[in-house]
Amino acid sequence: MARTIQSLERAAAVLRLLAGGERRLGLSDIASAIGLAKATTHGLLRTLQQEGFVEQDEISGKYQLGAELLRLGNSYLDVHELRARALVWTDDLARSSGESTYLGVLHQRGVLIVHHVFRPDDSRQVLEVGAMQPLHSTALGKVLAAFDPVAHNEAMDSDFAAITPLTVTDPAAFDRELEAVRARGWASDVGETWDGVASVAAPIVDRRRMPVGAVGITGAVERVLDGEAPRPRLVAAVRDCARAVSRDLGAGRF
Amino acid sequence: MARTIQSLERAAAVLRLLAGGERRLGLSDIASAIGLAKATTHGLLRTLQQEGFVEQDEISGKYQLGAELLRLGNSYLDVHELRARALVWTDDLARSSGESTYLGVLHQRGVLIVHHVFRPDDSRQVLEVGAMQPLHSTALGKVLAAFDPVAHNEAMDSDFAAITPLTVTDPAAFDRELEAVRARGWASDVGETWDGVASVAAPIVDRRRMPVGAVGITGAVERVLDGEAPRPRLVAAVRDCARAVSRDLGAGRF
Repeated sequence: MARTIQSLERAAAVLRLLAGGERRLGLSDIASAIGLAKATTHGLLRTLQQEGFVEQDEISGKYQLGAELLRLGNSYLDVHELRARALVWTDDLARSSGESTYLGVLHQRGVLIVHHVFRPDDSRQVLEVGAMQPLHSTALGKVLAAFDPVAHNEAMDSDFAAITPLTVTDPAAFDRELEAVRARGWASDVGETWDGVASVAAPIVDRRRMPVGAVGITGAVERVLDGEAPRPRLVAAVRDCARAVSRDLGAGRF
Repeated sequence: MARTIQSLERAAAVLRLLAGGERRLGLSDIASAIGLAKATTHGLLRTLQQEGFVEQDEISGKYQLGAELLRLGNSYLDVHELRARALVWTDDLARSSGESTYLGVLHQRGVLIVHHVFRPDDSRQVLEVGAMQPLHSTALGKVLAAFDPVAHNEAMDSDFAAITPLTVTDPAAFDRELEAVRARGWASDVGETWDGVASVAAPIVDRRRMPVGAVGITGAVERVLDGEAPRPRLVAAVRDCARAVSRDLGAGRF
């Protein structure tokens, strides 16, 4: 009983394939990428299309992800307890810091953004809910890697890609930084993921004091930093927010 | 060749079940709701969990939708041509109208919101990307039902539920309204979906002049209406936006 079901695993592989790289692929490309016969792949795609998980372009015949995934992803957010508890606090953090606020959880060797509050100004901003961030270069990722043992293993197993010239690419140096993060209770990313952009994040814990996510702010280095380090006012605001959400999740006050 | 795959259809049924109603369900509830043996259902859930499509709560043992759906839903948006073309224009519409702006497409007998620009003020607003709206009571839905024959059939087959006291629940009256929508080129919803809230929407067409979506604004009746009808200034702004997006999609100018 309860072995996994091969056709489901193959369907998930098709969806993952369409979610990365090219994103619009023909039948032959999909079949060869996942290593299946065309007929088998067509059966998968036909069922995925019928259920709304993939769509086929009428003119090119190529496949892409379908609308049902957006609907289901939205339903996932609706029952996300951490996100629900964090809505008001992250809003307050965006106002008090004047910067974009993000809430992230560990997912597939990275940070999945489950909530994003825009910087409270009139600038045009793109919502990043559902986007992934690397564990080894972002403040959210470092917080998860420092406090969640599963995230730590996944971060240490990662490729430590140099995303910018400032990304920490040496595993030993990264692990030393995580020790410092654990000691002071927050993490930062200064130009390690996006040039000229810094972020600060802190851990959210549940009633068992297990890390369940990270919350942080992101903004231009000119606003976020004072010299080399994040402004203490911003660090305090991020940590206040993380503590408030943790308390709402049932974590003790001390 | 290319028959549909039963285990995939069943997995999709599990996900749809978890996306509606209770949203956190035990194995027995899921098995009985989709009419399968517990062992079969457990195999489905185990594979869905392994792939990140469902998550199981450690304490209650109940299942809910998983994070991978949010990631895939975000990837769906990334390749959404209509949404990409509409980003700038909907932003402009929100600024010029001062109201929330929505972009919707037909999905599963309803309107799926694929883009939402907040009302440009300091109020706290909840993002509705991925949410569904009814065809028969919203301005977006009426536009789709008026201009897209598939949406028309689905709207006429719907249950015409009375969502508010003002919802049009008579199919013949609704169909007459759609004729008026086709004649004037835009639709409105005055308190038919949310008490005290009105919306205005117009169709977006592609290079073949086929309706591919609807764009509209939503706001308090006090701001959106002048007497009984939407303010001409707002109607013009919505239709300008729809025309601009259509032109970007390749629709001719006349």
